[in-house]
Amino acid sequence: MSHPTAGPSRRLFAAACAALAAAALPLGAARAQAAGKPNRVVLQVSDADPQKWTLALSNAYNVQNGVGADGVELEIVVYGPGIGMLRNGSPVADRVASAMKSGIAVVACENTMTAQKLTKRDMLPDIGYVPAGVVELMKRQQQGWAYIRP
Amino acid sequence: MSHPTAGPSRRLFAAACAALAAAALPLGAARAQAAGKPNRVVLQVSDADPQKWTLALSNAYNVQNGVGADGVELEIVVYGPGIGMLRNGSPVADRVASAMKSGIAVVACENTMTAQKLTKRDMLPDIGYVPAGVVELMKRQQQGWAYIRP
Amino acid sequence: MSHPTAGPSRRLFAAACAALAAAALPLGAARAQAAGKPNRVVLQVSDADPQKWTLALSNAYNVQNGVGADGVELEIVVYGPGIGMLRNGSPVADRVASAMKSGIAVVACENTMTAQKLTKRDMLPDIGYVPAGVVELMKRQQQGWAYIRP
Repeated sequence: MSHPTAGPSRRLFAAACAALAAAALPLGAARAQAAGKPNRVVLQVSDADPQKWTLALSNAYNVQNGVGADGVELEIVVYGPGIGMLRNGSPVADRVASAMKSGIAVVACENTMTAQKLTKRDMLPDIGYVPAGVVELMKRQQQGWAYIRP
Repeated sequence: MSHPTAGPSRRLFAAACAALAAAALPLGAARAQAAGKPNRVVLQVSDADPQKWTLALSNAYNVQNGVGADGVELEIVVYGPGIGMLRNGSPVADRVASAMKSGIAVVACENTMTAQKLTKRDMLPDIGYVPAGVVELMKRQQQGWAYIRP
Repeated sequence: MSHPTAGPSRRLFAAACAALAAAALPLGAARAQAAGKPNRVVLQVSDADPQKWTLALSNAYNVQNGVGADGVELEIVVYGPGIGMLRNGSPVADRVASAMKSGIAVVACENTMTAQKLTKRDMLPDIGYVPAGVVELMKRQQQGWAYIRP
């Protein structure tokens, strides 16, 4: 009977630890890792320059090669003057398809498409879409993704 | 009398929770929200390219449109070769004025102005100033702002 | 005897605080400061444009001037089309040497060197090397460094 309250105190301690985990994880931990892969990188394509498109794709592969494809979540956000990268007939259409097969997400900005009177039929197959490329880039950083603008 | 220490233990638990909140909030929370708006984005303009100036402004509007003007704090940092965006006679002078009216902060780098022998009389009215554009970009990221370089 | 359990509860409280500190510090704190300097900035050079090379170096100096050379850790990551900045005969060779003397780290991407059949003998003396420039940019951001792409 030396610690008559050890039981409830331990329960309180456990509750405090659970609260700690619940509060801390969505904060700083978002920077280093999520539920899924330990590394996350969002790449921006916003130039009307096919060399930049190729560079963004090879940057993504280099991250995969560096940390292992299973160790990184990658997303290429294409918007503004860069949108041609994802139009039908894009000079990097085959490379975009290969990248998606290797697990790299590629998304087009619907704001840009509307401004340029493009519909999904004008775009490469199987790509993803986001309402606004810049909002996507903001949200990914808020979620802890590293940002790279090739 | 089954839990004679429930009172003090609960007070300790409350104190632990308060300590948790105080410690956790200034850390990771800086990334997602501040005292003010839940989203914060700093945009960099450092190219001597009027198309980039227009793009930066429309990027800022697109974030406002995407999350609501009340839901985001936006700042455009103009420095180096980009400084012409904010000089008197800038081709985007009207757009800069409109952006500021809509709540987007626009700041010029005083380092760049000194290097180019510009004074505030050479600059667009009502813009803000920072001692060094790159230091501002660093500080905003330290404070949790997302960074976008159009 | 009004608080017979104050002792163990206080120990539990102290343990909770220690757990809190241990859990919280590696998270958000990474963003603002490390064991070393309070500010950390990584700069990207990936353009084949000597003006961008000069700009990246002056950006780094401007951060040093803004917060004091002792107050900031700086690293310039050179990769892809930017690699010429660090080749022998680079037009900014002298400036790179001066920057390194002032404490700015300058590192070349070995992926890029392999792709361009460059060896360390082809490169400026005393620079550093990283296996992949983009992975370095990702890791630095994960460690809380601000990212600037001039």
